[in-house]
Amino acid sequence: MKYTNNSKSIVDSIINLKDRDYFKGTVQIMRKIQPGPVVLAVSDGYGTIDAVSKECNFNVRDVVDLEGDVSERAGKLQIEIRSIKASAKDFTAIIDIKSKPTERSLSILSKKLEMLRPHFIRIAQRIRKAIISNQPILIRHHADADGITSGLAIEKACELFMREIKIEPEYALFRSPSKAPFYETVDMLKDISFNKRLLESHGQKKPLIVVLDNGSTPEDIFAVKTLKTLGFDVIVIDHHNPVVLKEGKTAVCPYLLDHLNPYMHGFDGQISAGMLCYEIARLIHQDFNEPLLPAVSALGDRSNLPEAELYLKNTHLELDRIKKMVIAIDFLAYQLRFDSGEGIYEDVFTNQAFVEILNQEVMKGVETQLQSTLPYLRTQDINGIIYSYIDIEKYTLRFTYPTPGKVVGMIHDTVSLGKEHMPVITIGYLSDMVILRATKPVLPLAQIIKKLQKDIPEAVVDGGGHECAGTIKFVSAHLTAILENIKQQIRNVNYIEKKQVAQ
Amino acid sequence: MKYTNNSKSIVDSIINLKDRDYFKGTVQIMRKIQPGPVVLAVSDGYGTIDAVSKECNFNVRDVVDLEGDVSERAGKLQIEIRSIKASAKDFTAIIDIKSKPTERSLSILSKKLEMLRPHFIRIAQRIRKAIISNQPILIRHHADADGITSGLAIEKACELFMREIKIEPEYALFRSPSKAPFYETVDMLKDISFNKRLLESHGQKKPLIVVLDNGSTPEDIFAVKTLKTLGFDVIVIDHHNPVVLKEGKTAVCPYLLDHLNPYMHGFDGQISAGMLCYEIARLIHQDFNEPLLPAVSALGDRSNLPEAELYLKNTHLELDRIKKMVIAIDFLAYQLRFDSGEGIYEDVFTNQAFVEILNQEVMKGVETQLQSTLPYLRTQDINGIIYSYIDIEKYTLRFTYPTPGKVVGMIHDTVSLGKEHMPVITIGYLSDMVILRATKPVLPLAQIIKKLQKDIPEAVVDGGGHECAGTIKFVSAHLTAILENIKQQIRNVNYIEKKQVAQ
Amino acid sequence: MKYTNNSKSIVDSIINLKDRDYFKGTVQIMRKIQPGPVVLAVSDGYGTIDAVSKECNFNVRDVVDLEGDVSERAGKLQIEIRSIKASAKDFTAIIDIKSKPTERSLSILSKKLEMLRPHFIRIAQRIRKAIISNQPILIRHHADADGITSGLAIEKACELFMREIKIEPEYALFRSPSKAPFYETVDMLKDISFNKRLLESHGQKKPLIVVLDNGSTPEDIFAVKTLKTLGFDVIVIDHHNPVVLKEGKTAVCPYLLDHLNPYMHGFDGQISAGMLCYEIARLIHQDFNEPLLPAVSALGDRSNLPEAELYLKNTHLELDRIKKMVIAIDFLAYQLRFDSGEGIYEDVFTNQAFVEILNQEVMKGVETQLQSTLPYLRTQDINGIIYSYIDIEKYTLRFTYPTPGKVVGMIHDTVSLGKEHMPVITIGYLSDMVILRATKPVLPLAQIIKKLQKDIPEAVVDGGGHECAGTIKFVSAHLTAILENIKQQIRNVNYIEKKQVAQ
Repeated sequence: MKYTNNSKSIVDSIINLKDRDYFKGTVQIMRKIQPGPVVLAVSDGYGTIDAVSKECNFNVRDVVDLEGDVSERAGKLQIEIRSIKASAKDFTAIIDIKSKPTERSLSILSKKLEMLRPHFIRIAQRIRKAIISNQPILIRHHADADGITSGLAIEKACELFMREIKIEPEYALFRSPSKAPFYETVDMLKDISFNKRLLESHGQKKPLIVVLDNGSTPEDIFAVKTLKTLGFDVIVIDHHNPVVLKEGKTAVCPYLLDHLNPYMHGFDGQISAGMLCYEIARLIHQDFNEPLLPAVSALGDRSNLPEAELYLKNTHLELDRIKKMVIAIDFLAYQLRFDSGEGIYEDVFTNQAFVEILNQEVMKGVETQLQSTLPYLRTQDINGIIYSYIDIEKYTLRFTYPTPGKVVGMIHDTVSLGKEHMPVITIGYLSDMVILRATKPVLPLAQIIKKLQKDIPEAVVDGGGHECAGTIKFVSAHLTAILENIKQQIRNVNYIEKKQVAQ
Repeated sequence: MKYTNNSKSIVDSIINLKDRDYFKGTVQIMRKIQPGPVVLAVSDGYGTIDAVSKECNFNVRDVVDLEGDVSERAGKLQIEIRSIKASAKDFTAIIDIKSKPTERSLSILSKKLEMLRPHFIRIAQRIRKAIISNQPILIRHHADADGITSGLAIEKACELFMREIKIEPEYALFRSPSKAPFYETVDMLKDISFNKRLLESHGQKKPLIVVLDNGSTPEDIFAVKTLKTLGFDVIVIDHHNPVVLKEGKTAVCPYLLDHLNPYMHGFDGQISAGMLCYEIARLIHQDFNEPLLPAVSALGDRSNLPEAELYLKNTHLELDRIKKMVIAIDFLAYQLRFDSGEGIYEDVFTNQAFVEILNQEVMKGVETQLQSTLPYLRTQDINGIIYSYIDIEKYTLRFTYPTPGKVVGMIHDTVSLGKEHMPVITIGYLSDMVILRATKPVLPLAQIIKKLQKDIPEAVVDGGGHECAGTIKFVSAHLTAILENIKQQIRNVNYIEKKQVAQ
Repeated sequence: MKYTNNSKSIVDSIINLKDRDYFKGTVQIMRKIQPGPVVLAVSDGYGTIDAVSKECNFNVRDVVDLEGDVSERAGKLQIEIRSIKASAKDFTAIIDIKSKPTERSLSILSKKLEMLRPHFIRIAQRIRKAIISNQPILIRHHADADGITSGLAIEKACELFMREIKIEPEYALFRSPSKAPFYETVDMLKDISFNKRLLESHGQKKPLIVVLDNGSTPEDIFAVKTLKTLGFDVIVIDHHNPVVLKEGKTAVCPYLLDHLNPYMHGFDGQISAGMLCYEIARLIHQDFNEPLLPAVSALGDRSNLPEAELYLKNTHLELDRIKKMVIAIDFLAYQLRFDSGEGIYEDVFTNQAFVEILNQEVMKGVETQLQSTLPYLRTQDINGIIYSYIDIEKYTLRFTYPTPGKVVGMIHDTVSLGKEHMPVITIGYLSDMVILRATKPVLPLAQIIKKLQKDIPEAVVDGGGHECAGTIKFVSAHLTAILENIKQQIRNVNYIEKKQVAQ
């Protein structure tokens, strides 16, 4: 709104102010600097500006009706206060209204996503509210293609919104990758330490922590419970199987401000975190559009949904080119470790030559790792199941990409070729770990782990993953017993017999 | 001192200055900024302020009698110089006097600590002097509960003092944990590098390095000798057995500005570093009071002194609650690694729910590690000594808390239950290390190491610790020989026979 | 040039300006700050200064004829613009001329280096141009004595030049060590990330990357190719055998802005990188003189050239003292890992006591490692070749300096004593690596690797080094086969027989 008073425009919205305007509106005091002339940082629930006066009895958090001349000092606008009075307005309500996302339809047609839309809106609004009310945002995401595209989507949309309302993202928006497939203790403590050292100690609010493509499982409880105890607001957007799920509630729900996971709404992990985050990001800022992000996410997590195809189609690029982006991102994530890769991942989406070079490098590694492992793979037919195993520690190069986990996947794909008619299970073992891949869930991972825990309790077996892919960890002394037990479990499936009976 | 000249107050103490006062006093020039109008940072041996003038022939380190009007610019006081003359006063003496701690009795009644009181005062004065004279302070402490409480005590007291005399701790006070039980080469080089990069290069003085709960042993010589050679002042406050001790002097004394260790005064390690540092911290600033710190330190290092009980009593908390704080701090120290944990440790002292969550997490780990190890512990009675051993590498989970060292302690406690009448020795071995715990010093660790060094010189045996707890390191090829040798040493004790003879 | 206009001096060179001068000259606009009064950062191709005006229609990169009064604000000079007009001058040409190094002869008499002189001048000019045109410089160097002295020489000379033309090195000059003997993926990605996070995001240009004592070999291709794709300028100054060399061009040449390697000009690695960089550094700034740098480099890489002796002679120090500097630097580089060691290496050149302490510490380690290994070294005479081997993993202490590679060198030197008449080959092996040293190239490393790759392809053998010293890496499963194969290769040399035939 804008009208003229003498030669000056009267403006009631901070982000629209110009030199020589006259401001008149309701604001909240965010910061007060003294002694000397009082400098107030005030917000109208959207923009923020300094307002100066010789004296002022109001304090931080007070809501006031304020008027004054706008002028420019050293390239920065400020208000010279002419009038300041206590206001009766409910500022929380003002912020809630301003936090509301603009109306915007989903980027693809999808009944499933449409059902999740109210959750998208609610989370987008909470993130916008954090930005408007000067609460820093800390994004934690899994360090694979799905997690990284999730993180980038939320980050880019927040940046757009921050720049619009003149907040400097450098001091209010942070993004970090987590190497583990859950919110690890170390990462959580780093986030607390970061807050203590760089935010709270400089007078900033406790950040809103947004955990992406991680956070839903029992392994995440310790981290989110600790954060809640210390007073942090945590939002989780994940698509991993929460394992514990009762009446739409997971084991981490009690510790979260908000939790979105397709499993909580009757869907499964095929809706990737990157898809969810992309639609939320579009609601955080109306100008946000990065169709490559959900496409890379979908391919990265091998989603078979029609939604995945729609996202891929929206990129107007060939499948092969996007596949190469996934490979490039996974490689970069491995090399960058705890670095957020700011600016580097962006190059993957725009610089095809860069993607090609990274892919060539990965391919060299793939050939090397297959050359050293395949000759030593032992394969046998156990009652109709093709079972292969290899000591992945002994037969691969250390500290070399692709990692042991990816090598087992590659070996498994090679073994499975032409064996679509029968189940294939492949395991690679290290001294204290077994990595498993399967084509069919004839023996789900969770079942294997449960039996191992029962039969060999002293091995303290643990692990996680999906039905057909995952990791089993244990005390190294029991490797042989573990391997023998798994083989026996496969025997006990009696696949052929059961199949014949079934026919 | 303050009196009135016309309308202005004449003030001779910088920290008491207000806008529109008139300053008149003796100061030293700490910094001089030119060209343009000269800006001098001057100190009266306590407070520091900018004094401005068009011209000025005096230079950094000059002591001058200075007068001028005090005014406020952008929220900061400064003196507009009216008169500046060379002063004949001895500024070193001024600083020495101002460095003197306020009179203050110990926080508990203790003859032992009372005897160490002159050393507390001397060290507190030196640290205060560093603060007053703008010498940065770098605190290095062992990363266990005793070391951390030592570090926090000194840090918090320095902060109080700095804020009083308007020095920003962010640029003058630093604290870092050392994972090794001595001042390692890497840590020492990091400290030198930190100084070169962030202090000296910005015109600051070489820091005063304060080493806590570390620093007294021959293993520390290389670090402190190097620092002395490079011109650093180092103070050590430690309670570990200095091993070398002649006429009250240790092997590191020649390289230190000051060294406090109970062993140098006829006491032993039962006086924890945290107790020493707490009493010194109380002398660094009169308002410092954190009774939880020495209590956590005493429990952390299992001190059996009456002093420990007095400190515990001063907290007005139940023993169990403080024990849990120790467990929480040890866990955090393990996870935080090289992070100083700024702000996080503080939460341990104030947030009980946080402490509970950390304890639950530790307990889960304890159960897991005991479950995987106890079934494989081998125990035998060797001439009256209960000797147990286990391959701790093979039978525990890697990268899991509690660490192998703590696991051996837990196993040892389990084995010792109900065996108070006879000596119990427990060892856990890794490929190149033996961790030892004993209930009675029938075969002191130092003796074991000495014999191993003599019998198997090519194993290059080394190690350290107390009589009944410690670590032996060696070249991995000789593990079997080392284990056999230790067993033979236990046999040679002939404990039963000697005991029968003695009876 | 300077003349007087009324009471003011008219000056056309920014670095010579003083308060109350009048500037008149051609400048390029480097940065433009708005809104508010316009502030232009302008450069005359040498110095940079702020020029202010109420309004200005020119933009960044425009070349203008500018006039105005020089005044001082807060200790900083600025020009108040009186006249600003588009200039027809070719600013690129101006910068090219100003980038030209001052004429200066080499620091030693050497025909070889004299032949490389045009390359020295060309590279020095490019580095000077980066400095003049505000392009940051990122120095990457191998982390050994040769690489470090190379890095220090270029860094110090750039600093001198930057200070002369009033550029703050803190924001424009960076140096990092690389632990690997090539430009590793991780290092390259760190450099890109550093640029994105700290340079480009703050409006700075993409840096000029200068790779020293690394960068010439096929292993460097991936890094430099990626950098070129992303638009970086990379200069390599190296002396390692480029392996691929055709008509003076190497495998990395297509990706570099400039490449200097003695092999490209018919010389070999005996001309160390430190010698090359020293002569280039002297051309970067006329005042640069640090005769210790090339001397330490020459000794560090064991150069036998007469040039090495001349550099040593120029230091006026005894050989033994410089040898100790080499040992000290290697030790520091090991301990400092990824820290640039700013200020610490400098102490090595000036503080003899510091060097002595470091040498004593290294000597202790040397004795320990020899004591644990020598008794287990197996030595045999294979057809006239003295062949020794040892499991270096089993018989040395982990994480202890000297490293396994240096230990093998020490063992080899011990074995070779008094055996100058016959070839000596020594290998130390770890589970997935063989370290080799030889006195004579009777069986060059490259040949060994080639045969291993042919005979045991599944071991994925790789490696590098010189004819008589280097490393062979492979998949650990094949250690025994690899060792047996090497022994057989030595047998096949039939050294004695061939020698007798030859005589």
